[in-house]
Amino acid sequence: MLGLVQDRPLLISSLIEYASLYHGDVEIVSRSVEGPIHRTNYREVNQRAKKLAQALGRLGVQPGERIGTLAWNGYRHVEIYFGVSGMGCVCHTINPRLFPEQIAYIVNHAEDSYILVDLTFVPLVEALADHLPNVKGFIVMTDEAHMPDSKLDRLICYETLIGAEDGDYAWPDFDENTASSLCYTSGTTGNPKGVLYSNRSTVLHSFCVCTNDGLGVCNQDSILPVVPMFHANAWGIPYAAAMSGAKMVMPGAAMDGQSIYELMEAEGVTLSAGVPTVWLMLLGYVKEKGLKFSTMTRTVIGGSAAPRSMIEAFVNDYGVNVVHAWGMTEMSPLGTTGNLLKKHQDLSEAEKIDIRLKQGRAVYGVDLKIVDDEGTELPRDGKAFGRLLVRGPWITSGYFKGEGGQVIDEDMWFDTGDVATLDPDGYMQITDRSKDVIKSGGEWISSIDVENEAVGCPGIVEAAVIAVPHPKWDERPLVIAVKEPGHSVTREDVIHHLEKTLAKWQLPDDVVFVDELPHTATGKLLKTKLRDEYQNYKLPTA
Amino acid sequence: MLGLVQDRPLLISSLIEYASLYHGDVEIVSRSVEGPIHRTNYREVNQRAKKLAQALGRLGVQPGERIGTLAWNGYRHVEIYFGVSGMGCVCHTINPRLFPEQIAYIVNHAEDSYILVDLTFVPLVEALADHLPNVKGFIVMTDEAHMPDSKLDRLICYETLIGAEDGDYAWPDFDENTASSLCYTSGTTGNPKGVLYSNRSTVLHSFCVCTNDGLGVCNQDSILPVVPMFHANAWGIPYAAAMSGAKMVMPGAAMDGQSIYELMEAEGVTLSAGVPTVWLMLLGYVKEKGLKFSTMTRTVIGGSAAPRSMIEAFVNDYGVNVVHAWGMTEMSPLGTTGNLLKKHQDLSEAEKIDIRLKQGRAVYGVDLKIVDDEGTELPRDGKAFGRLLVRGPWITSGYFKGEGGQVIDEDMWFDTGDVATLDPDGYMQITDRSKDVIKSGGEWISSIDVENEAVGCPGIVEAAVIAVPHPKWDERPLVIAVKEPGHSVTREDVIHHLEKTLAKWQLPDDVVFVDELPHTATGKLLKTKLRDEYQNYKLPTA
Ligand SMILES: Nc1ncnc2c1ncn2[C@@H]1O[C@H](COP(=O)(O)OP(=O)(O)OP(=O)(O)O)[C@@H](O)[C@H]1O
Ligand SMILES: Nc1ncnc2c1ncn2[C@@H]1O[C@H](COP(=O)(O)OP(=O)(O)OP(=O)(O)O)[C@@H](O)[C@H]1O
Ligand SMILES: [Mg+2]
Ligand SMILES: [Mg+2]
Repeated sequence: MLGLVQDRPLLISSLIEYASLYHGDVEIVSRSVEGPIHRTNYREVNQRAKKLAQALGRLGVQPGERIGTLAWNGYRHVEIYFGVSGMGCVCHTINPRLFPEQIAYIVNHAEDSYILVDLTFVPLVEALADHLPNVKGFIVMTDEAHMPDSKLDRLICYETLIGAEDGDYAWPDFDENTASSLCYTSGTTGNPKGVLYSNRSTVLHSFCVCTNDGLGVCNQDSILPVVPMFHANAWGIPYAAAMSGAKMVMPGAAMDGQSIYELMEAEGVTLSAGVPTVWLMLLGYVKEKGLKFSTMTRTVIGGSAAPRSMIEAFVNDYGVNVVHAWGMTEMSPLGTTGNLLKKHQDLSEAEKIDIRLKQGRAVYGVDLKIVDDEGTELPRDGKAFGRLLVRGPWITSGYFKGEGGQVIDEDMWFDTGDVATLDPDGYMQITDRSKDVIKSGGEWISSIDVENEAVGCPGIVEAAVIAVPHPKWDERPLVIAVKEPGHSVTREDVIHHLEKTLAKWQLPDDVVFVDELPHTATGKLLKTKLRDEYQNYKLPTA
Repeated sequence: MLGLVQDRPLLISSLIEYASLYHGDVEIVSRSVEGPIHRTNYREVNQRAKKLAQALGRLGVQPGERIGTLAWNGYRHVEIYFGVSGMGCVCHTINPRLFPEQIAYIVNHAEDSYILVDLTFVPLVEALADHLPNVKGFIVMTDEAHMPDSKLDRLICYETLIGAEDGDYAWPDFDENTASSLCYTSGTTGNPKGVLYSNRSTVLHSFCVCTNDGLGVCNQDSILPVVPMFHANAWGIPYAAAMSGAKMVMPGAAMDGQSIYELMEAEGVTLSAGVPTVWLMLLGYVKEKGLKFSTMTRTVIGGSAAPRSMIEAFVNDYGVNVVHAWGMTEMSPLGTTGNLLKKHQDLSEAEKIDIRLKQGRAVYGVDLKIVDDEGTELPRDGKAFGRLLVRGPWITSGYFKGEGGQVIDEDMWFDTGDVATLDPDGYMQITDRSKDVIKSGGEWISSIDVENEAVGCPGIVEAAVIAVPHPKWDERPLVIAVKEPGHSVTREDVIHHLEKTLAKWQLPDDVVFVDELPHTATGKLLKTKLRDEYQNYKLPTA
């Protein structure tokens, strides 16, 4: 017997429509690509998103078509999110930091019919245009006054395009399972593959983000997502902000510590979200200048493990609560969050940091389990570690166009490629990626564990640990580290520091210093690149 | 094109399974019907809910069958919520305060095959049993030691029944639209009609309750729902508490001020929810004894309009934030909540109360509009008032077995039977029920407005305002009021008090004092009864 409840679809358009009606004058503040700070609000964003839908319709765009974006976090990108998905098309956010060939591959793979481009990326599409024969037009996200001089004949001006419409448009109703957006994975472990979200999955995920054990986004917040909108939909924040009526503060292209800090202070930012690399820059700046955060109460750190020193700095030095979060493009992306439980309130600060260091408990909606190589479920004892499998209504069932083949098992479990432990309270801790783990004489050494300890060593600002071939042990760890400018920390200092917490067999066989570590577009260590570079590295122990 | 996302159903069983895994030792504390305070936790509730599902299965209960409950708020009732819906059956919560004939009508209408009964209600079912020939068994929610002496041959002991099972049971997977629970409306304006919720609607509603603009239920909370589990599923709190891992404190049969207060203090209650009548009793007790609330930070008042004096008492005298909420059984029930916006933070306390007095803004998921008698949408200007229509994925599409016929229009709008205004920020204010409005010479007088002002008069504890026939004006308002014990307030005092805020033509033509006002099972003024009683009342002005 079925319930007698209205069969109303969960649609992305209802998020912006809601924000427009109930939080119409709440601001979206952007550092624009053209230069100045730009202010708009949900009412205007909804209006302009509708104009965009009308304009794309007039260009002949049909439901289901993929519309690409090459853009920073800004209000026009927000309009595109809602306009494109709202009209029943697929908003395909392209990561502009990928190699040009990869971008061309992705655009052609997705069959984007139009691409919306921030001014910054016009040279990029000019260079690529010949490889993108099926793209009917590049819509430059600016007004006529700022349109670039370009030889490209397929350029369209965004403001002129939408300016021709009247905004008298009602968002259409359709199946909530309709595809809404497309995002390719970061390419940390291999070639990016497309994850195709639906209206339903996006709305459900937004609910999750708005709950306290998600990210607790609410209308009292002013949110600055440093995480780019081309990376897993900025962790779903634009949707959740609209659902809850939170103010959004968009950093545009300027991710350096000073720019982010100034925007936070100017716009009363209460909540922020980004990868550790970004927080390193911000904390570095704040420390150097002796500043503090006057409105920020919490920050979400995810995408890579948050090092202890970073959590300590935020919590202890600046009074900013840290929500350590884990997720994947394939998961919309939220999987776990590291909020403390009520029973933790009397723990010491250090014990609380211990808990925050874990990636957190599954949010409601996400099923998690760890299994051994045979697929047998392992105990939730905080010790056993195994392949982490996930399941839920905002988790991918397969990549776009079937890339990678069948990716879920008969019970719908998806293998994350991460290795983790689960403790009795459900706190999950990533010990490593299955591809990054260092297999030393039958034992597994977590590259992440060693990295976390290494960045705690005075004078080290960032460190990567990779497996290097070893004649006796198969693989042994190598630390590749970046020094604080002017610091004289040595190989021995690092190893000495690591001896305090690591077992002897986990200690790296060597430490090399570099000026910079390679990162993915989302700020993660690109260990595939490091492994390539150091594949013939001769360890002193070898 | 559809998204590539896992097709996982939203099931009620996943709520308790989640709570059990991630908040297993969070407590559910109940004032038991047998006497003592009882403590259990989510892990045990999940276990016992599974045993109940096994036991009902063994009794031959099939998916879709309606299983009735006649029970207070307590842990066994929580187990039944999850066990019955989790196995694919329909948990039919029966309001024990209805007239016995109404209960018999409802049970037979729902075709309940088993009814789970708290000890309190055994005499009730004994009296009714002959009229309930199709009920196969009455499962008494107690253990063998407390089983009553009864002539009824269909009695089953709950603890014995579930004690025979091993709990080795996996919640089944099924369509998320499967009916999960059945609740008849309060019967304030007519005969109760059945609202049939689904697993999907319940989970979506729970998400809403867990967002900050819903009720903000989270794992830091200890929640005491005074609103009964037989009234619109205790406003969805048991589900939302499981979703978020909040502690639940269940008052059982004791709703008096002292019992509630003591439980709140003993169990660190942070959040509570109930109808104004209950809060009147609580505030009366707290005031009399000169007490304060040491942990409660917010309380939800709904079901009827919260009077200004009540909101002021909570906010100003006790520092308890008030969330004024409006909803209906037909809406699962949450429709609007009166949370303040960020832009309100600098208002004076009195201005903030003005906003809290409204029923609040629609939660995301609920579409609201007001229309005139022709169905034309009225402006959101805070002045125009009209019939309030609603739409959304947790709103009924029709009553059980088609009672009342077609209740939604072609665009799915459901007429709430309430009359309301909507202001530019989206705050809705109920001016009256369409049936309660006083039609005086072509003008409408809101019975609720007059009531709200009347209870602000010193010496008045409760007041009802109804329409009484009048030869010249068609209808004129009559105040029927209850005095504070020992207070000598007069008819003239009340009218004098009302003159300060009401227009002359809105003033009541008379005031009568009574010892008690009639209420529905959920504590609402039963104006149908008052109208019957006073239909021949001769107004001094007539
Ligand atoms: N808090 C965290 N701690 C540790 N690792 C994390 C955390 N959050 C995310 N990750 C890592 O990031 C991965 C998800 O990242 P994303 O989806 O951006 O692409 P990617 O996995 O880096 O790239 P690709 O899948 O193309 O190799 C997770 O599988 C996990 O390994
Ligand atoms: N905060 C509130 N302020 C004013 N009225 C409220 C509020 N909350 C609920 N109500 C009233 O309660 C009604 C919903 O109550 P419920 O579903 O329990 O049954 P009922 O309407 O009282 O009974 P019936 O529908 O059987 O006549 C709403 O339609 C509204 O009139
Ligand atoms: Mg990945
Ligand atoms: Mg009603």
